[in-house]
Amino acid sequence: MLTKSVYLDAKNRTLELLNIAGIALTNAEKDAIEVADFGLKQVEIQGLQLITYINNDHYCAKELVLFPHQTCPEHKHPPINQFDGKTETFRCRLGKVFLYVEGSATEKISATIPESSKEYYTVFHEIELNPGDQYTIPPNTLHWFQAGEEGAIVSEFSTTSSDEYDIFTDPNINRISEIEE
Amino acid sequence: MLTKSVYLDAKNRTLELLNIAGIALTNAEKDAIEVADFGLKQVEIQGLQLITYINNDHYCAKELVLFPHQTCPEHKHPPINQFDGKTETFRCRLGKVFLYVEGSATEKISATIPESSKEYYTVFHEIELNPGDQYTIPPNTLHWFQAGEEGAIVSEFSTTSSDEYDIFTDPNINRISEIEE
Repeated sequence: MLTKSVYLDAKNRTLELLNIAGIALTNAEKDAIEVADFGLKQVEIQGLQLITYINNDHYCAKELVLFPHQTCPEHKHPPINQFDGKTETFRCRLGKVFLYVEGSATEKISATIPESSKEYYTVFHEIELNPGDQYTIPPNTLHWFQAGEEGAIVSEFSTTSSDEYDIFTDPNINRISEIEE
Repeated sequence: MLTKSVYLDAKNRTLELLNIAGIALTNAEKDAIEVADFGLKQVEIQGLQLITYINNDHYCAKELVLFPHQTCPEHKHPPINQFDGKTETFRCRLGKVFLYVEGSATEKISATIPESSKEYYTVFHEIELNPGDQYTIPPNTLHWFQAGEEGAIVSEFSTTSSDEYDIFTDPNINRISEIEE
């Protein structure tokens, strides 16, 4: 449960970053900005803001907005019935993002792992994304990401998104955030 | 066949518009900017510039760049074998776009139909897209679009793109442009 004031503050900071990037939203999209605290109640440290442009039976497009050093916790998109699981392409639009995926661990990673959840970060193959850089994450592949010191905006192009099926390494996480009325 | 100088001029103007919008490309993406004149040799009037970010078996993301009043000619994306045909979502990022699709004709349309190809424009249901506005075009649906007086940038999110199968109303059109060496 997100308190109303935490939600509104995160939403306003999201709008500021979008404004810096020159990314326009409709009023309906502004109202629908999603703030995910993953049930951890420390949205500044582990959290993510999302705008979903389109999510149909074939493809999905979102903007992901991250505050400075904010981290989206480690998770994967598993197969669902006939579907292989979500494939997603992250394209950095503003700021800097450190993305971590399965594979050979980078010797000295640039991100700071959130202290309170240290044991739930297990993949350390680092990809640094600056504006114009992109990376495609295959289905069912563990990944997490953290913004640099100015925050970041990432365009996500993907197959159909069904966040409720995401598998997080941290068992305390609840992907779907509710906002206090 | 596009002459080298027409291609380079269109590419430079594309980079200027992307710069105004704050959209960053890698050097490889800059080199790969596609200028489509549709074989009509009047790229300023009927033409389109494209940057393809990703095009895999499931989804595709591009930026479409249009110069002031430039028109992408009428076409549709037909079914191919098991595939229904391309579904595409146009999201305006910069400038203004007038999009025309099948359906009730708008009484007085805002675009100017290219004089030399008048008979090959047959659908007139107008949708005006300003920054933040988007519209999804179903498969196998005739559509064409024209930028407003400042040009436009449109993000396209879609199913897999296979431009070579596009069906244009104008039989003189050749979708795949080659550049003079």
